[in-house]
Amino acid sequence: MTKDRLLAFSDGVFAILITILVLEFTVPKFQTGHLLIAMLQQWPILVAYIVSYFYVGTLWLFHHDYFQALKSIDRRLNLINLLMLFSITLINYPMALVAETLNRGNNGDIRVAFIAYAVIALFISGTFQLLYFYVGKHAELMSEKMKRARFRKSHSDPLISMVLYILAIVTSLFWVSLGAVFLLLGICFHFVAYLHLSNALGQK
Amino acid sequence: MTKDRLLAFSDGVFAILITILVLEFTVPKFQTGHLLIAMLQQWPILVAYIVSYFYVGTLWLFHHDYFQALKSIDRRLNLINLLMLFSITLINYPMALVAETLNRGNNGDIRVAFIAYAVIALFISGTFQLLYFYVGKHAELMSEKMKRARFRKSHSDPLISMVLYILAIVTSLFWVSLGAVFLLLGICFHFVAYLHLSNALGQK
Amino acid sequence: MTKDRLLAFSDGVFAILITILVLEFTVPKFQTGHLLIAMLQQWPILVAYIVSYFYVGTLWLFHHDYFQALKSIDRRLNLINLLMLFSITLINYPMALVAETLNRGNNGDIRVAFIAYAVIALFISGTFQLLYFYVGKHAELMSEKMKRARFRKSHSDPLISMVLYILAIVTSLFWVSLGAVFLLLGICFHFVAYLHLSNALGQK
Amino acid sequence: MTKDRLLAFSDGVFAILITILVLEFTVPKFQTGHLLIAMLQQWPILVAYIVSYFYVGTLWLFHHDYFQALKSIDRRLNLINLLMLFSITLINYPMALVAETLNRGNNGDIRVAFIAYAVIALFISGTFQLLYFYVGKHAELMSEKMKRARFRKSHSDPLISMVLYILAIVTSLFWVSLGAVFLLLGICFHFVAYLHLSNALGQK
Repeated sequence: MTKDRLLAFSDGVFAILITILVLEFTVPKFQTGHLLIAMLQQWPILVAYIVSYFYVGTLWLFHHDYFQALKSIDRRLNLINLLMLFSITLINYPMALVAETLNRGNNGDIRVAFIAYAVIALFISGTFQLLYFYVGKHAELMSEKMKRARFRKSHSDPLISMVLYILAIVTSLFWVSLGAVFLLLGICFHFVAYLHLSNALGQK
Repeated sequence: MTKDRLLAFSDGVFAILITILVLEFTVPKFQTGHLLIAMLQQWPILVAYIVSYFYVGTLWLFHHDYFQALKSIDRRLNLINLLMLFSITLINYPMALVAETLNRGNNGDIRVAFIAYAVIALFISGTFQLLYFYVGKHAELMSEKMKRARFRKSHSDPLISMVLYILAIVTSLFWVSLGAVFLLLGICFHFVAYLHLSNALGQK
Repeated sequence: MTKDRLLAFSDGVFAILITILVLEFTVPKFQTGHLLIAMLQQWPILVAYIVSYFYVGTLWLFHHDYFQALKSIDRRLNLINLLMLFSITLINYPMALVAETLNRGNNGDIRVAFIAYAVIALFISGTFQLLYFYVGKHAELMSEKMKRARFRKSHSDPLISMVLYILAIVTSLFWVSLGAVFLLLGICFHFVAYLHLSNALGQK
Repeated sequence: MTKDRLLAFSDGVFAILITILVLEFTVPKFQTGHLLIAMLQQWPILVAYIVSYFYVGTLWLFHHDYFQALKSIDRRLNLINLLMLFSITLINYPMALVAETLNRGNNGDIRVAFIAYAVIALFISGTFQLLYFYVGKHAELMSEKMKRARFRKSHSDPLISMVLYILAIVTSLFWVSLGAVFLLLGICFHFVAYLHLSNALGQK
């Protein structure tokens, strides 16, 4: 399989994933005449959708630039890619959990939902770390540009995000709001990681 | 990332978006033996679907011709594109709101639904305006054809549609039917904007 | 817009449409211990899905070969294509209607459902007829191969299917089973039309 | 139709299929304050999703490498491909059945669900066997690489998986757990078959 086809398939999965996230954002149940109030109470799903959309969007930007910089792919990389896409398909679930529990307002449930989101995010970052590790061991897969870029600081970015997500999980056990902050930091950090990668590869 | 890949990803998102709109158009609840009546009462979702399909379809035609005419893209343009696609994914929600409220027939709810549709449409046009603004400031991204075309009347088209949507929002507060007319005008105007762009770029 | 991009977008819409049809085919409601009986009662949705899948699949094969044979496209053809895709997105609805009414077994409802399916199919064939008509008037859009092929019998195929669907609608008013036969004949005829086209264009 | 377009369409269908599987994995119904327990009871859908995702993913890898190795395609191959994609779209249904019945815990229902999964898997492998058979009879469709590879052991792989699925169906009638083991073996075997093919074609 060529790199182009792997990228086309992955682009397809990303495009579908990012679009079906919005299917969770549906018309609320409402008493006739009270639509506005019912809509305003939907803020959790709107916020969860916005965050998750830009999370998946950033992962796509990253995924794309990274694979673009590879010289070739092999069968194991193909499998790692399938695992990575698998981990990202799971995002829909904790997004809906967070929205639902914020709506109901029970602290214990909210904690569970945020931890579930952080666990999935940790899993996703783990697959990116696996990708970095595997490609790092197989210099023959890298383009020259990537070889020159590999020792720069972007190299440990998946690890940093994993640490943030572990912090999110642990602190959520004691203080949910702080856990949520770490979770958000982790997600925002992916954007930083994308900028690192993009700069390291000399792309505009 | 190359322009081709951005276009392929965007085409994918548009294709999915335009297709999942129809998922709102489902078999009605009906008493056995009274299907026809139940179907006839579904006219609001049919109308809302038709309008939204051609709205998204027109945006796709426009998006495609516009990016086709760019010489290259940079990282910021990529982010603007993600924001633009985000705004368009939201269309599903007010489409379903309008259909549901027209079905129930409460004036207050219908007003809220139309305003929600106009707000999303305003947001979408805002992202197109941002695109125009950004590309206008970065002549190096434009093809020669686009440079020659840029001072023509198509330049302020997103602004005109934004004005129409603001009018739709304001008039809806007092007179819902007039608001709906402005909303429809705004949506139809996108088609005019597409013709402007297409003509300005000398495409058949 | 180039022909390639129109084809890629259309392929995307077809791929999504053909795949979301299966979303109607879900786990039945069943009393614990009685799954098998509940599944057997789902035969209407299975049959409706099989027919609709191969219907849309055939339309895709046809659409693809036809546009492949065009030399170029223009803006009006683009709009006709959007209208054609719109008509095909509607298939999901009558497919679900037919399955639901066959399950409930009320003759009047079944009649309405079959007529709805035939009306949508008539609309789809109408958009193909419009395509034939428009391209027939614009020889500059045709490849040499298509020009040589255009006067063969494939030329009136959409009209023949339209006649079959009109027969399906009219006979359904008096005798539902006969209407269903005409409907099936119309759908099967699309496959014949595809073979006509494919042979006329000299494709294997 | 060219091989590239068939592959692009098929990639699209695979990308959508593999992504909509996750739509079955939704927020559980739960009493406020008892989310965690409700989530833990969802293990059947998680397991069924993981297995089905890697099943479809493996089929995609296989499908892709196989068609890549063909020199050209003809109309009949196109139809076989549509049938193959059809069979794979059905996987969503028994996946949900298995999850639902494992959740309820009635042995008879679980048996029916596993048999349904095995029947669909048998159907899928049957379409692959049909593909092997058809291409085997039409050497003109094969690339040189494939001709050299065709007599190797990969040739009877679909048959082997069909035998495993038939064993799964028969043993399920008496001993569900053993049937489930055969079903899993069959699914894992697809991965072996992919490695066979990939090695036979000399791909890394």
